[in-house]
Amino acid sequence: MTRDEPLFLRAARRMPLDRPPVWFMRQAGRYMPEYRAMRERYSLLELCAEPSLACEVTLQPLRAFEVDAAILFADILLPLIPLGLELRFAAGEGPVIDNPIRSHRALDALSHVDVSADLGHVFEAVRMIRGELDDDVALIGFAGAPFTVATYAIEGGSSRHFLQTKQMMYRAPDLWAGIMERLTEITVAYLRAQVEAGAQAIQLFDTWAGILAPQDYRQYAQPYSKRVFAGLDDLEVPLIHFGVGTSHLLEDIRDAGGDVIGLDWRIPLDEGWQRIGYDHGVQGNLDPTALFAPVEELTRRVADILRRAENRSGHIFNLGHGILPTTPVDAVKRVVELVHAASARSSVRT
Amino acid sequence: MTRDEPLFLRAARRMPLDRPPVWFMRQAGRYMPEYRAMRERYSLLELCAEPSLACEVTLQPLRAFEVDAAILFADILLPLIPLGLELRFAAGEGPVIDNPIRSHRALDALSHVDVSADLGHVFEAVRMIRGELDDDVALIGFAGAPFTVATYAIEGGSSRHFLQTKQMMYRAPDLWAGIMERLTEITVAYLRAQVEAGAQAIQLFDTWAGILAPQDYRQYAQPYSKRVFAGLDDLEVPLIHFGVGTSHLLEDIRDAGGDVIGLDWRIPLDEGWQRIGYDHGVQGNLDPTALFAPVEELTRRVADILRRAENRSGHIFNLGHGILPTTPVDAVKRVVELVHAASARSSVRT
Repeated sequence: MTRDEPLFLRAARRMPLDRPPVWFMRQAGRYMPEYRAMRERYSLLELCAEPSLACEVTLQPLRAFEVDAAILFADILLPLIPLGLELRFAAGEGPVIDNPIRSHRALDALSHVDVSADLGHVFEAVRMIRGELDDDVALIGFAGAPFTVATYAIEGGSSRHFLQTKQMMYRAPDLWAGIMERLTEITVAYLRAQVEAGAQAIQLFDTWAGILAPQDYRQYAQPYSKRVFAGLDDLEVPLIHFGVGTSHLLEDIRDAGGDVIGLDWRIPLDEGWQRIGYDHGVQGNLDPTALFAPVEELTRRVADILRRAENRSGHIFNLGHGILPTTPVDAVKRVVELVHAASARSSVRT
Repeated sequence: MTRDEPLFLRAARRMPLDRPPVWFMRQAGRYMPEYRAMRERYSLLELCAEPSLACEVTLQPLRAFEVDAAILFADILLPLIPLGLELRFAAGEGPVIDNPIRSHRALDALSHVDVSADLGHVFEAVRMIRGELDDDVALIGFAGAPFTVATYAIEGGSSRHFLQTKQMMYRAPDLWAGIMERLTEITVAYLRAQVEAGAQAIQLFDTWAGILAPQDYRQYAQPYSKRVFAGLDDLEVPLIHFGVGTSHLLEDIRDAGGDVIGLDWRIPLDEGWQRIGYDHGVQGNLDPTALFAPVEELTRRVADILRRAENRSGHIFNLGHGILPTTPVDAVKRVVELVHAASARSSVRT
């Protein structure tokens, strides 16, 4: 690791910097006209399945904004497909799985997954993207955490109360453990292969961890996330651990693993970082709906996050969750400029 | 207030007791066959509109379980109807409002509400229920907090990202304030009239407060909830302040008002109560999905909450959110028995 490393990687390794790097979750998405044009021709799963399309979509925000990182265009549920789950995206409904796993029989019926063969298109996309990116832009690979992926596999899609999931945890702990072990194993292999193909950092999305009580998180989710992080440890790429609505779990999420911990907007960045500890980086914090605010209000909110971060080593600027589909493109551009301007200011100061 | 007051009221006033009172949010609901039989004949809004039906449904769980409180059968969105909002409940979709408030014009077009006339059926239901209840069972009245009711009035129903709501807060603060003042005024009058009709305690449901960052809560929601609580202060009935996913807002919610503060399952009861302070009571904490667990696991979870409460004055046993529609009736019964058994144990001890 050198001073010529991408800013994003230096931040993730907590090296001192003039300004934090900035990127956005779902920076390739429906808010961009270029992306919508692609989606008129291809479904989400088609974009994910064809490396040249995934590469093209990954690069769209890099052409539009001076973000410091690209994130592989993919979906956290892709590894469920080779397992034999029938994943589709219903209009307006999000992901739907027509044969959710709710029995030992369904678990036993899952196919054997050879990650490098069955998800080879993802690694091919990683190689293509890495070949196209400038050296100063980092490429982030990712996967869903076993818990979050399991909620979809068990509920058969998005959920409000996660009743099937929790019911299985409480009533069929062996079945739960069986599913989680299966997902953990695939997740480690999937992420290792992304790094081997050229991903320079990894983000683990435990999007729904926040629905759990701390004790339930520690019993039913954390052990598997720990194993994912442990399984990547020797690769020496920075690891980001993301969740939303996790103000009550920050310490437990940190203890599960990751060099950089995600903070949504529900906790002031300084307070969250203090709880996590300065031996970890933090990422996130801007409410995605702030991008709909008037420019003065957006500016104030970005400045507030930068002020709370105090240009401490290990800060990565991002939203607390993904960019919403109707977000104005100009607001995204504006946030990038504001974070860049923080650099100019701090340069003047030093 | 005497030793003969209902246990629930003594707990809410933080008097020392042998055991906490127990009741359930949505204790009258789809999980009960008696309720489903009523819903085969009447819509939700019909049950709310006819005092004798609302009274009957309110009493159903009192006949089935030895709960310590009844809660008026009503919906937090009822006050929107006389304002002129077209509220309906779509099958599987929850509440839908076909003419949401999204402009000054829509705000100005709202009807004048004479609470005692326009919502008189609710107060009539309160009087009927109070007439039917045993003296040792308390009757809780309720309303939605202005913020939570506003989200429905603005989004036009349930929401995932609350984008219309937050957009209005950020882009049209005057319009936001106008709506919130209107809702605050009605809420105070509505709750005062419930108390005058016989409600012995009031719960304010700020169900969605937890989606807000602390600063946004303090700026856009808290001032109005404060005014609601201040507007009830002279009535000297215990006030409960409820929210879910509010671990990051507990102190702010307490500061807005209420004698008893709701805790969902995301925070251990002892930790939450310590943060709120023992000069307030606490209510809640059991994950509604725990009622789907095997009886040993459910027993363990109820015991854990009782242990953390240490029979401190001001503890009210409840779920962290409403009973889910598919909940087994036996589990509800079991929780009531377990809380009663806590009494027996503590009596032996003293």
